[in-house]
Amino acid sequence: MIRVIQWGLGAMGSGMAKLILEKDGLQLVGAIDTRPEYAGKDVGSVLGLGRELGVEVQATPDGLLDPDVADIVVIATTSWTAQQMPQLRQILGSGLNCISIAEEMASPEAQSPELATELDQLAKANNVSVLGTGVNPGFVLDLLVVTLSGVCHKVDRIEASRVNDLSPYGPTVMATQGVGITPEAFKEGVANGTIVGHVGFPESIRMISDALGLGVDRVVETREPIVSKVLREAAHVTVQPGMVAGCKHIAVGYAGDKAVVKLVHPQQVHPHLEGQSTGDYINIYGTPDIVMSTGPEIAGGIATQGLAVNMVPHVVQASPGLKNMLDLPAPAALMGASAYRRRV
Amino acid sequence: MIRVIQWGLGAMGSGMAKLILEKDGLQLVGAIDTRPEYAGKDVGSVLGLGRELGVEVQATPDGLLDPDVADIVVIATTSWTAQQMPQLRQILGSGLNCISIAEEMASPEAQSPELATELDQLAKANNVSVLGTGVNPGFVLDLLVVTLSGVCHKVDRIEASRVNDLSPYGPTVMATQGVGITPEAFKEGVANGTIVGHVGFPESIRMISDALGLGVDRVVETREPIVSKVLREAAHVTVQPGMVAGCKHIAVGYAGDKAVVKLVHPQQVHPHLEGQSTGDYINIYGTPDIVMSTGPEIAGGIATQGLAVNMVPHVVQASPGLKNMLDLPAPAALMGASAYRRRV
Repeated sequence: MIRVIQWGLGAMGSGMAKLILEKDGLQLVGAIDTRPEYAGKDVGSVLGLGRELGVEVQATPDGLLDPDVADIVVIATTSWTAQQMPQLRQILGSGLNCISIAEEMASPEAQSPELATELDQLAKANNVSVLGTGVNPGFVLDLLVVTLSGVCHKVDRIEASRVNDLSPYGPTVMATQGVGITPEAFKEGVANGTIVGHVGFPESIRMISDALGLGVDRVVETREPIVSKVLREAAHVTVQPGMVAGCKHIAVGYAGDKAVVKLVHPQQVHPHLEGQSTGDYINIYGTPDIVMSTGPEIAGGIATQGLAVNMVPHVVQASPGLKNMLDLPAPAALMGASAYRRRV
Repeated sequence: MIRVIQWGLGAMGSGMAKLILEKDGLQLVGAIDTRPEYAGKDVGSVLGLGRELGVEVQATPDGLLDPDVADIVVIATTSWTAQQMPQLRQILGSGLNCISIAEEMASPEAQSPELATELDQLAKANNVSVLGTGVNPGFVLDLLVVTLSGVCHKVDRIEASRVNDLSPYGPTVMATQGVGITPEAFKEGVANGTIVGHVGFPESIRMISDALGLGVDRVVETREPIVSKVLREAAHVTVQPGMVAGCKHIAVGYAGDKAVVKLVHPQQVHPHLEGQSTGDYINIYGTPDIVMSTGPEIAGGIATQGLAVNMVPHVVQASPGLKNMLDLPAPAALMGASAYRRRV
């Protein structure tokens, strides 16, 4: 049994904790969350499982970060590497492996090379591994893209899109994607940084470029409003015709003057109301060409939780250091004993 | 530069040799083929490149299987592990790594566990790695399937199909797929083993089952004739209405009584003449469901050549022993320097 600590019990973290509890080869030995209403409660009742598990939610990691207690920490607390560094230093410095779903951790070298170097050295010094993963970045627009390229004699350029529906999400996502506002307010929001769009394009492009040797030296991102022609009503927002339904975020990786990787992630409420299906689309232009799609898109939050948990055996068995999804064997659902024994 | 020997210069092997020559990080240092018309010729003229490369095609491996000469042998000579064992023993016993495109080598333990054990022990004893790869088995109906499952909380069952067009192929393939004959003759051919259909289903199912821990203990294969309703004319065969256009080969992996993996590979000439598109289709029934397709199918021969060459850096850097595509990091096209430095 691999002993796992879940750090962070928000929307993603609570799903991950429940999944860890369902897996025969994993044991949830600790839970950390700063929400005052969780402190001291059994994680079973915090997760709404209707039973107690003998694991108390702690506001701090005290007593948990110990190789005698646990093998790995799965952490879901933020999107940003710099913000997570204190916790990562604690975890790795205590001799525990780590999986993070912070988007920037999918490839921290992309935007924070010194932090990446520090994480790699700290992990090696403590004989453990640290991995960033998630559905995007970490799977759809990087791992899947690279894997498909593996059949190619040559790759001229790559274009991949992930089209999803934001309608189930809450007010925070509506705000960071600019849903329900005027095109002018959208433009302002992008300029002042309140409209974020997708987090992870530099990371995905870095992973693709490094794995294939494409030599990307520049990433240019644009965020355009998706202006609706029709009325779109969702749980936490109503979009009038002429207002913004979401954010079309595009990133292009250039090698010199050549655009070699283009990643597109239009996020909006109810895309189907204007004839847009949801899905993941990967186009590799090369020898051979590859045209791949999923319909609908790979379900986001569920997939991130799945990846974080499914990668536990890989990370525990990996060689020490900072890893990304392209360094490790293919992820797989953990459905039985042999899944926990993946040779690395 | 990784020094590569190409063993086998048939349709697949010659394509692999040409691709090796195009890759900056690889050097073709030897070529082996038993065709009398090739013996003693420069591999450049044998490959039709219009120039000499200073590498002579040898009928035997004499003088080549030496770590001072080469790092790895890429071998394309047969579909069957047992038939390739003499060459594999020579290669590994000489201290060279090996990549094979023999279909059974994608997972030799599936049908030949003692040979798999021997290969693993021989590779370890000589501090080298051996890998079987190819488009199918080795990629579409196993690696891609497993990778997609990596987002899943649970997998109830998997159904995947690869639909291709046999019309470009020659008389041997027409014969082994039963194209152009009567349904009765097809049934006979399956019974007497001349109609083979696809090679690789036990291997793909074994890889999927092991990676996910599905516990498949029995694989049942069926080969049905695809009887054409229309006239289908191809380069090496004409199929009259009522005659066989190809072989629908299905394999089901059972865990006890439960069918957990179903792989379908209908191979025929001109499927579009009866409204069937070509493509690779992967359906994972679980949490979440995944519905993936490529259109058209990932081009077979080209993809096998690409994988065999693209996996060279992985295999050279891997830990010693017998490997399969699920043991190693994601394959990637070799387009620049960093592609040759994939961390394992």
